[in-house]
Amino acid sequence: AIVAAIEAALRVDTRLPLPGAAPGPLAGRHVLVTSGPTREPIDPARFLSNRSSGKQGHAIAAAAARGGARVTLVSGPVEIADPQGVATRHVETAQQMLAAVEAALPADIFIGAAAVADWRVEPSADKIKKSASGAPPTLALRENPDILARVAQRGAGRPALVVGFAAETRDVLAHAQEKLARKGCDLIVANDVGAGVFGADSNEVHLVTRTGVQSWPRLGKDEVAARLVAYICESLAAGGTP
Amino acid sequence: AIVAAIEAALRVDTRLPLPGAAPGPLAGRHVLVTSGPTREPIDPARFLSNRSSGKQGHAIAAAAARGGARVTLVSGPVEIADPQGVATRHVETAQQMLAAVEAALPADIFIGAAAVADWRVEPSADKIKKSASGAPPTLALRENPDILARVAQRGAGRPALVVGFAAETRDVLAHAQEKLARKGCDLIVANDVGAGVFGADSNEVHLVTRTGVQSWPRLGKDEVAARLVAYICESLAAGGTP
Repeated sequence: AIVAAIEAALRVDTRLPLPGAAPGPLAGRHVLVTSGPTREPIDPARFLSNRSSGKQGHAIAAAAARGGARVTLVSGPVEIADPQGVATRHVETAQQMLAAVEAALPADIFIGAAAVADWRVEPSADKIKKSASGAPPTLALRENPDILARVAQRGAGRPALVVGFAAETRDVLAHAQEKLARKGCDLIVANDVGAGVFGADSNEVHLVTRTGVQSWPRLGKDEVAARLVAYICESLAAGGTP
Repeated sequence: AIVAAIEAALRVDTRLPLPGAAPGPLAGRHVLVTSGPTREPIDPARFLSNRSSGKQGHAIAAAAARGGARVTLVSGPVEIADPQGVATRHVETAQQMLAAVEAALPADIFIGAAAVADWRVEPSADKIKKSASGAPPTLALRENPDILARVAQRGAGRPALVVGFAAETRDVLAHAQEKLARKGCDLIVANDVGAGVFGADSNEVHLVTRTGVQSWPRLGKDEVAARLVAYICESLAAGGTP
């Protein structure tokens, strides 16, 4: 029944008009999406980052726009183009991403697909030089703000649906369930990034909610995006969290 | 006289045929260029890197090819296309770049334009998780091989001309002179990266040799590349190091 419902929703989705034409299932909704990595400066030249390409997050923003939503995308540094019909804000660090997210709220749906750096480095104003002793420098790491948790744990003005992502290399479902509870979000889209997902055009995800797990086969990232938006529309239509 | 000679060389350069046509001033020479950043993995998702775009190094490889040389380019991860007429090898880490450079030797001219990471991280096979205590992880840095010094200090098979780059944020010339001596190369192309050079299309460089400094005005990176190749051709024609 779930598969049939998703397929029905997808059939509707593929017939959706462009934004501005007839209203889609997300008409009147504001969807806020984060995507890509963040980049944490170490000095004027060096930085800490991660391999997120932004393909999955950007595809979700585009799918939400096709669904009729007003979409704001907050993107870290990526090599891909801004999605059409989406208001895109470009940021570099996790702190900048948090500020852009807070500026874009309120939203009906928050989808945190960005790979936000857990830690930043206390940056040096000048380029760090090799020391005469040959000893490597010490990077003083500091914990970054947790954007997903902050959005999920807002009081008034919390989005009706808060979706997080979990990129794991082992114990994928256990980590995702723990993350769902700890962050207070409604849905975690979990995937195993041990197997060449970064930069790829396909993705194999598990949807983890408080009531269970739904695993999808390996699909194109555009297809994952369309199915996720259909799933979200169903959840909202059912009047509650997934 | 130097300016006139450079201008003369540039006039010749701009009339150069494409590789495979009539021979240019570098015909019969093998030029080995490195370009771009290196990317040092921390775990399957995270890495340490730097802001080098590869534009200057790639432009130099292209200019050397237009000068008639056989050119090998060893490039770190960049967003720009491989130059035409250049054999390009793609690498990620400093250790991979060193291996690709050694595999490409011997060369008549080595131009190390890449921003090779000075340090790598002892990588974790699994994604590093936040600890329960909230304490950030410690990144154990290890010094990377010094590709420029290794090439410059080869005995038999040392390229006739070894050119390094120095991206500095202060004391640019002093750091470049110290680097020239310490690494044993023939020429350092130094620039100040405090002022929006990364990713830009222009560059303001100083050519530092054992005998002096030649400063060029801010020029397009393609123009810097053409002038540098002309300068190298002159040095070789004069039968010695710059």
